[in-house]
Amino acid sequence: MTLDTFLTGTRSQLETALANSFTDSGNRQLTEAIHYSLLDGGKRLRPALVRAAGEIAGADVNQWLTPACALEMIHVYSLIHDDLPAMDNDDLRRGKPTSHKKFNEATAILAGDALQAEAFALLANSQDLNDAQARKMIQTLASACGASGMVAGQMIDLQSEDKTLDLTQLANLHSLKTGALIQAALKLGAYGQANADAALIEALDLYGQAIGLAFQITDDILDVTGSTDVLGKPKGSDQAAEKSTYVSLLGLPEAQLKAKQQHQLAIKALQAIDLDESSILWQLADYVIERDH
Amino acid sequence: MTLDTFLTGTRSQLETALANSFTDSGNRQLTEAIHYSLLDGGKRLRPALVRAAGEIAGADVNQWLTPACALEMIHVYSLIHDDLPAMDNDDLRRGKPTSHKKFNEATAILAGDALQAEAFALLANSQDLNDAQARKMIQTLASACGASGMVAGQMIDLQSEDKTLDLTQLANLHSLKTGALIQAALKLGAYGQANADAALIEALDLYGQAIGLAFQITDDILDVTGSTDVLGKPKGSDQAAEKSTYVSLLGLPEAQLKAKQQHQLAIKALQAIDLDESSILWQLADYVIERDH
Repeated sequence: MTLDTFLTGTRSQLETALANSFTDSGNRQLTEAIHYSLLDGGKRLRPALVRAAGEIAGADVNQWLTPACALEMIHVYSLIHDDLPAMDNDDLRRGKPTSHKKFNEATAILAGDALQAEAFALLANSQDLNDAQARKMIQTLASACGASGMVAGQMIDLQSEDKTLDLTQLANLHSLKTGALIQAALKLGAYGQANADAALIEALDLYGQAIGLAFQITDDILDVTGSTDVLGKPKGSDQAAEKSTYVSLLGLPEAQLKAKQQHQLAIKALQAIDLDESSILWQLADYVIERDH
Repeated sequence: MTLDTFLTGTRSQLETALANSFTDSGNRQLTEAIHYSLLDGGKRLRPALVRAAGEIAGADVNQWLTPACALEMIHVYSLIHDDLPAMDNDDLRRGKPTSHKKFNEATAILAGDALQAEAFALLANSQDLNDAQARKMIQTLASACGASGMVAGQMIDLQSEDKTLDLTQLANLHSLKTGALIQAALKLGAYGQANADAALIEALDLYGQAIGLAFQITDDILDVTGSTDVLGKPKGSDQAAEKSTYVSLLGLPEAQLKAKQQHQLAIKALQAIDLDESSILWQLADYVIERDH
């Protein structure tokens, strides 16, 4: 299967499942705000990782689709909160007004809060997962997005404004802010198969670590080499915000080399479990460093 | 056991468990902000409900203490977010600066976000709960605090400012905003015993519904009859904010009658499971309508 077909198929299954998983809340405006952010498209890269890992582990569609939805709910809640005035203060996301612009700040905070709870509810309530599976997925997701994961990453990111980080600090920031959820995506997919092999989980974890970092380095590179139109956000915005990036610390050629090295590590992890370049995870690793937005 | 002894004992066990349950995060300021709000005392009424229900169901201390901590984490996250400038905009809580005043807005948002994740992590990771128990507790807690529970209640509360609600709308607001978590507290306690009796759960649910409402009506009454010193917040603040309350809709004597009626419903639920006035839940029901703050 080509990556394009895979991504399109994942998006379509995911959008339907997300729309069904959350049909109503105790309040109309809250429902609208949740739908507005949850169903607005996006690359859906994390759900694709859940699916790809799930299929390799031998999970069927119901077993990867639920954790894919839960993980996307966490991702979307984090975007809503990151955009808030007290955080990154962004007015636009994917060309549309951010939640607090479209509704108001209180609604955006609450939509994010609700999405986090709904993510865990979805896993806990799924009839396609046995108790041990549901529990393991909740452990993995809660740990990835909690005080030692994604939230800590966002906190460090905010504290790092106008400061120069060293490479270790930058890697730590990204491994918490975006890496933790990417690694969780792969594990959640594999846990869709109740008896997933430990060596498989280990390889997926190494792969996740490598593409997470490759993804971030590529983001930093695109901020310099990309085009504003294709990126959907102003080129050079990292530089304007005086953020430490792999390009600002290493220069462009070294940053490109580092992205390729991470790509190689990802491929090595896949080879260890006998996946070749026709596999979706291999194609995803290529995509992560070759994309133009 | 007297209620005082019970509450003091619960607080002491809870504070120790909370301090141990969350010792460190990926970031120092985040850890500080979480500890600041989580370990600042308070009545700890919800954990006491978890414990009382747990003891009646036959749960041992490890089985009620974990859900009590998880529930309190959710409660504390909701207080941090409710206090934010975009929400209720409160500078003080229990006589201390609120989280966004002590730290800053971004930190307060993130401390709340992290606490929500940690609550689910705590339940999922507990070695004292079997898979089915942990899952049932997570289902109950996520549903109580999600888009059809507590968060919807806060959304309705914000939308109701400067509006006059009718009694049905007011009851709906409170059953979502505070009732859902109180009912969850009782269920979580009972689930501490893996084989809790269905009739017991049913009785605790009715009891929770009744004391939740009695608690809120009493809050509204105290805003009129209480003293600013004892309340720890300005007397008359509901009136100043032109909020619909049981007193504004019914007048003081009718509101007091309604609180007593709810108290009677709570007692009836306890009698159905053969609890008498020496039981902690009975004493708690009395306390809810007799308290002065």
